[in-house]
Amino acid sequence: MTNAILLISCPDRKGITHAVTAFVFSHNGNIIHADQHIDEQSNTFLMRIEWSLQGFNIDRHAIAAIFEPIAKQFNMTWQVHFSDTKPRLAIFVSKHLHCLYDLLYRYKQGELQCDIPLIISNHPDAKDLARNLNIEYHEFIIMKENKIEQEHKQLALLHKHHIDLIVLARYHQILSPQFVDAYTNRIINIHHSFLPAFAGKSPYAQAFQKGVKLIGATSHYVTEVLDDGPIIEQDTVRISHRDTVEDLIHKGSDLEKVVLSRALQWQLNHQILCYGTKTVVFN
Amino acid sequence: MTNAILLISCPDRKGITHAVTAFVFSHNGNIIHADQHIDEQSNTFLMRIEWSLQGFNIDRHAIAAIFEPIAKQFNMTWQVHFSDTKPRLAIFVSKHLHCLYDLLYRYKQGELQCDIPLIISNHPDAKDLARNLNIEYHEFIIMKENKIEQEHKQLALLHKHHIDLIVLARYHQILSPQFVDAYTNRIINIHHSFLPAFAGKSPYAQAFQKGVKLIGATSHYVTEVLDDGPIIEQDTVRISHRDTVEDLIHKGSDLEKVVLSRALQWQLNHQILCYGTKTVVFN
Amino acid sequence: MTNAILLISCPDRKGITHAVTAFVFSHNGNIIHADQHIDEQSNTFLMRIEWSLQGFNIDRHAIAAIFEPIAKQFNMTWQVHFSDTKPRLAIFVSKHLHCLYDLLYRYKQGELQCDIPLIISNHPDAKDLARNLNIEYHEFIIMKENKIEQEHKQLALLHKHHIDLIVLARYHQILSPQFVDAYTNRIINIHHSFLPAFAGKSPYAQAFQKGVKLIGATSHYVTEVLDDGPIIEQDTVRISHRDTVEDLIHKGSDLEKVVLSRALQWQLNHQILCYGTKTVVFN
Amino acid sequence: MTNAILLISCPDRKGITHAVTAFVFSHNGNIIHADQHIDEQSNTFLMRIEWSLQGFNIDRHAIAAIFEPIAKQFNMTWQVHFSDTKPRLAIFVSKHLHCLYDLLYRYKQGELQCDIPLIISNHPDAKDLARNLNIEYHEFIIMKENKIEQEHKQLALLHKHHIDLIVLARYHQILSPQFVDAYTNRIINIHHSFLPAFAGKSPYAQAFQKGVKLIGATSHYVTEVLDDGPIIEQDTVRISHRDTVEDLIHKGSDLEKVVLSRALQWQLNHQILCYGTKTVVFN
Repeated sequence: MTNAILLISCPDRKGITHAVTAFVFSHNGNIIHADQHIDEQSNTFLMRIEWSLQGFNIDRHAIAAIFEPIAKQFNMTWQVHFSDTKPRLAIFVSKHLHCLYDLLYRYKQGELQCDIPLIISNHPDAKDLARNLNIEYHEFIIMKENKIEQEHKQLALLHKHHIDLIVLARYHQILSPQFVDAYTNRIINIHHSFLPAFAGKSPYAQAFQKGVKLIGATSHYVTEVLDDGPIIEQDTVRISHRDTVEDLIHKGSDLEKVVLSRALQWQLNHQILCYGTKTVVFN
Repeated sequence: MTNAILLISCPDRKGITHAVTAFVFSHNGNIIHADQHIDEQSNTFLMRIEWSLQGFNIDRHAIAAIFEPIAKQFNMTWQVHFSDTKPRLAIFVSKHLHCLYDLLYRYKQGELQCDIPLIISNHPDAKDLARNLNIEYHEFIIMKENKIEQEHKQLALLHKHHIDLIVLARYHQILSPQFVDAYTNRIINIHHSFLPAFAGKSPYAQAFQKGVKLIGATSHYVTEVLDDGPIIEQDTVRISHRDTVEDLIHKGSDLEKVVLSRALQWQLNHQILCYGTKTVVFN
Repeated sequence: MTNAILLISCPDRKGITHAVTAFVFSHNGNIIHADQHIDEQSNTFLMRIEWSLQGFNIDRHAIAAIFEPIAKQFNMTWQVHFSDTKPRLAIFVSKHLHCLYDLLYRYKQGELQCDIPLIISNHPDAKDLARNLNIEYHEFIIMKENKIEQEHKQLALLHKHHIDLIVLARYHQILSPQFVDAYTNRIINIHHSFLPAFAGKSPYAQAFQKGVKLIGATSHYVTEVLDDGPIIEQDTVRISHRDTVEDLIHKGSDLEKVVLSRALQWQLNHQILCYGTKTVVFN
Repeated sequence: MTNAILLISCPDRKGITHAVTAFVFSHNGNIIHADQHIDEQSNTFLMRIEWSLQGFNIDRHAIAAIFEPIAKQFNMTWQVHFSDTKPRLAIFVSKHLHCLYDLLYRYKQGELQCDIPLIISNHPDAKDLARNLNIEYHEFIIMKENKIEQEHKQLALLHKHHIDLIVLARYHQILSPQFVDAYTNRIINIHHSFLPAFAGKSPYAQAFQKGVKLIGATSHYVTEVLDDGPIIEQDTVRISHRDTVEDLIHKGSDLEKVVLSRALQWQLNHQILCYGTKTVVFN
């Protein structure tokens, strides 16, 4: 059973919800989920609506064209997705492999509605893991002098594999603005702190030094500014004075896995909408 | 600025969302919130929709009559509320006053959209507090022999004060089925455990004896079965072997206050719908 | 039943625990709690030991003198406290009274082992509350020009009332270094964010703007740098895109009350030791 | 650097802490951690003390004999452990492999101070995983008629492999009292609910049916009564009406992994002491 999912954002005014639900109903669709939010600061209307294609009397390929006039009328930014398509995902990773392992386990268990044909790293550590799972693995050693060149090669690989979405699963390299632009709001990072606290390097060491009583993890879209894009999910866990930096790393890694996998799951279910520097997660 | 709020539940079928949003839109209403849920087990459609009365071209007193045909068509159970009406609330309490104090502080701060004209107790402990705040206070000593008689007097008082909603803020008396029937889904209790664990008497002592590592609190609608009605909200807090029963009582009382006040807030905002033995909280 | 409590910090070396427990045992004391921590970075030994005075063969007034040689031997910084003494507490507050109400309710219920003879504010809002509870209330209007002068008057009041400990229960004034020096590690503040994120003004508005998915509260000792002293306790609560700044303020205020009251409780039980810019909480 | 760890429980009386610390100090040991707890209900003294063997003037093999007279004097139940020994662990699993995967990943990363030579199952699902990691795998199909016989074979295997500790990582078979007796307080189970709520079969379905707002996981020692032994660790996570039973299973499995791995970590670090039906976790 396939569902269609519409994600909409536009200036708020009367009649949007009605127009969208009328579109679905008039073509014999059965709404499964409908959720909306109005951001009052920017007067933005945001909506996610999901309906069953069973009995829906527009062919899935024609939905966009038939919806387009409604979208124009309300000046909508919008996307339509289908629950049976599988986005193609590339994972970038460096030397800490816990998030990669976790994602791949979920992938193999069938929990993630996506294909993962490609892993890219600046280190060789994940090579064997990738080979065991028959996932292509490419190592790019990155230095100041070759960074742009290496990114070009990475982008070529991403295009070759028709990659829709990138997950930085503890990839410790800053991406260039050009790279980020090529995948706007389609690169998800996990940062090992409760942002905006402890951005940048060694957040666990920073947290230890500061003496905080909880540590956190943050999953966010990548923008040109380091550790600063729209936040998708965060969580925290209690620590105590007995915990060494090493303990924080262990406790934090459990948090990172859960926070990143939640964010990815929502992305794959088309539950996230960005507006300004923030996200709505319809869950 | 007043909003209207419709709470709807009915058997699920195509066209409900469309019919409701069409009703609002065709009368020039601007939807502020719209949220829905389908319970697949029972094939129940549940919806909360809130729209501004500004510019809405039906008088608020006529809304129910004009909506009625739509409701009939879909066999809806439904209520319409207005954001500027204040339900009248009675609080029942025994000897532990922390939840009562907390609610009254929020009430005095203007956080609760309600009137609280009446406090009922089986003890004198809250008498002075009630008097200070000019709230009528009635003490009913309850014994096996006089319980039904005392409840009749309580019900008479509730009717006299036009009470819409009852909060049991640690009221340690079991209400009779007749009493509960008079306020179906309008009596909110706070139980000091993570239900269904530790129902009944002395849940903190039970938790201590069991050696759990977290304690909880549960706010629920009262039904004829003790500590068993539809759960509105729950939360937990970590404890350790160092905590005595007395410590659990202190830690738990902070939890009870927060859990009960969330549940009450949602009730006053008409965010809760019961279905079967469960609740949907649209938040 | 009175207990004695020793709080110790000193350079780590062999034999400290043994020397301290030998002191207690050789004078016929029964140890109730003993907890220690070694900070490896600074090679600091930190200890809290609590024993019953029942049967202890040193008079409580002589304990310090008799312990002094041991303290000297290990170059200890140390304090001795007794569980039946009540520190004298002054509360500073501005216009947001929720923490003040919460502390005073706990005080009146006998949960706080202290006396609260004095409330100081830069606003009149808490005046009636203080009067109802027979607590002296002083309003000091603070402006740039008169700040130092007003602080002198405040200090005079604190001395007159023999104040041991100050709680800033949402006091929106920056204290001068001189003031802070007079009460080193004896001024506890509640800041309405998860520090170090969102220090300074309007943290809830900052959090809303940033789009974080959790908000926090932090209780810490006050130092000369704003919102930067040793952290005693923190906690977080989940928010969503539906929450307005106003909602954050309400959700956050419940968090602030709990976090501040935990920190104060630990302070009153002599469970906190500062080392460098951090705290150990023996709980 | 190897540490010795003493775990002690005995009737409380004066002088225990002193006697133990004097033992360590008089043999030139440097205490790293010392923690104690008194259970007032049963008048039980519980202690964990850890000291460095560097410079300690008793050979590690002689420690027990030399400590024995002190233990006798205070009627202690006690164990001595060394931080460089690796307990031998067997994992039992059925068809849900997430906890098994998680433990084995931690094991391979060097996070767990143990050896894992053996996996036992009543299903073939984990066979390949075990083979990949060179861990012996045995499948025992269990039916009513052959249960005792199969358990005998399992016990023989456990003895052959010198197994010290058993983890039931979602092993869906009830162990016989004889089996449990052979490993008293050395079998750790993960149950996928917040015990004592939802013991027994299908706890997620039970939780869904009940409409709780949080789900939990519990790690505990196995006793003869199902899902009832001393609790080591618990945690909870928020759910909503939108979550299906399937969603609870996914959210819960993340919780199970974390809760079980914490419990195992504490066990391997000798941080847990049982007393009566409860545990002390010195962390």
